[in-house]
Amino acid sequence: MSPSRVREGGQRGWIVPIGGAEDKDNGKEILRRFFDLCGGRGAEIAVIPTASQRNGTGSRYEHLFGELGAAKVSVLDFDTRRDAQERNRISRIEHASGIFITGGNQLRLSTILGGTPIAQAIRARSAEGVPVGGTSAGASILSEHMIAGGASDNPTPHADGVRLAPGLGLTNRVVIDQHFRQRDRLGRLLAALAYNPFAIGLGVDEDTAAFISPENVIEVVGSGSLTVIDADDLQFSSMAQHDDDEPVCMLGVRLHVLTAGATFNLMTRSAAAGALAPVKD
Amino acid sequence: MSPSRVREGGQRGWIVPIGGAEDKDNGKEILRRFFDLCGGRGAEIAVIPTASQRNGTGSRYEHLFGELGAAKVSVLDFDTRRDAQERNRISRIEHASGIFITGGNQLRLSTILGGTPIAQAIRARSAEGVPVGGTSAGASILSEHMIAGGASDNPTPHADGVRLAPGLGLTNRVVIDQHFRQRDRLGRLLAALAYNPFAIGLGVDEDTAAFISPENVIEVVGSGSLTVIDADDLQFSSMAQHDDDEPVCMLGVRLHVLTAGATFNLMTRSAAAGALAPVKD
Repeated sequence: MSPSRVREGGQRGWIVPIGGAEDKDNGKEILRRFFDLCGGRGAEIAVIPTASQRNGTGSRYEHLFGELGAAKVSVLDFDTRRDAQERNRISRIEHASGIFITGGNQLRLSTILGGTPIAQAIRARSAEGVPVGGTSAGASILSEHMIAGGASDNPTPHADGVRLAPGLGLTNRVVIDQHFRQRDRLGRLLAALAYNPFAIGLGVDEDTAAFISPENVIEVVGSGSLTVIDADDLQFSSMAQHDDDEPVCMLGVRLHVLTAGATFNLMTRSAAAGALAPVKD
Repeated sequence: MSPSRVREGGQRGWIVPIGGAEDKDNGKEILRRFFDLCGGRGAEIAVIPTASQRNGTGSRYEHLFGELGAAKVSVLDFDTRRDAQERNRISRIEHASGIFITGGNQLRLSTILGGTPIAQAIRARSAEGVPVGGTSAGASILSEHMIAGGASDNPTPHADGVRLAPGLGLTNRVVIDQHFRQRDRLGRLLAALAYNPFAIGLGVDEDTAAFISPENVIEVVGSGSLTVIDADDLQFSSMAQHDDDEPVCMLGVRLHVLTAGATFNLMTRSAAAGALAPVKD
């Protein structure tokens, strides 16, 4: 499931992983920015609450995007893989100007939607330029390699510290983890990169989002931080030499802590402070 | 309090910060290695339990080093700054072949010993080649800039996330934090380096030690990891622009996770996997 091909002359849509617990009561900065990217008042947003098993998750976002002024919000829930083949729901995705995936359990998303026409439709819409955002589990599912689980509360990597699963594959440049600071997940994100250092790790805090532009430049929005782990220069990893819960040696990781307004270019792997003034030349 | 001057032709002693909770029951790998550096069976070790307010901390280490075979172990406790001027205790430090500082509260160490003849004697012995080790609070006190407190359980740096105080100053090349993984202290170590990126951050896990050689090469001993934070190439820090508990933007930090046998050279700022075989050239 590498990303769907973008049409000649076209542009992929924004990809917007949110770390969970985004503000829904005050400025709604992250949701508002996403709503604007979807077309603002003309937006038709499809909300997928499948990760959640709580009643009311879908309708809550329906209400939120409605309040922001979306022309139409459809809540599309999927309980079975069969639901993910239903023509009417596929059509909603095909007409949406934005797709939003709620939190819950990312394995529910991957096991129910993975490989179905709905997943294909989301991938195709992303390749056609439609923004796709997700919060918490909905953030994890966006990338090719998804963190499905693993040890929280552990900042150092362990050989068995993370479980990966294939995600929606809107991009394969990043591996996303969420509730990052709140659940102390540096260790599992490092472990995921130790497996194969090609990707860039994004640790997204709560009430924080990585807005990944069609040009693959990330801008940070929200009250927390985005931790960017770049293992491109990784000198050494002992991952292949360990079993079980032994700590893993990783030498030469580059780390950036980005706050609101700061940017990271996934193509050049360079960070910039954005609107924040430089302290040092 | 920069480090005492090393005599021409002489060599500074080993500096051994331990992350706390080092093994005392099984192989005692860390304590044994320290004991060997102090001269093994000929060792005269001075134990300073002042950080701890528990009875028995000093005698526990007296017993442990005795069991390992030390010729003499003296427990030197200090309740007041006046105690730290007492001739007999200073003489014990002057004759010790190794000095060990226990855990507890590092501010007790700095407030009671700071600037006293005992602190001067420890610094002088270190400059003369005597190994000085410490665990937990005893690890923090070893360096020039000591983390005295701050927020644990937070992997991202905050403007008020750390409190620094002057330590014993055996080296000014590092800032040490302990119980690193167990108490999730990456954020406060990053905050300490954001203040002034000149030093190298050492996050020492429990049952793990950074053996810093006279040549300033660190070797890791123990069951956990040493997280090395090198902010030498720091591109940007927003530390100066924040008040209070706002997250701090830090771009371009280099991070190494070292496990047993791996080394880090403080002079060249280069990490090596040591006895671990390379995965990648």
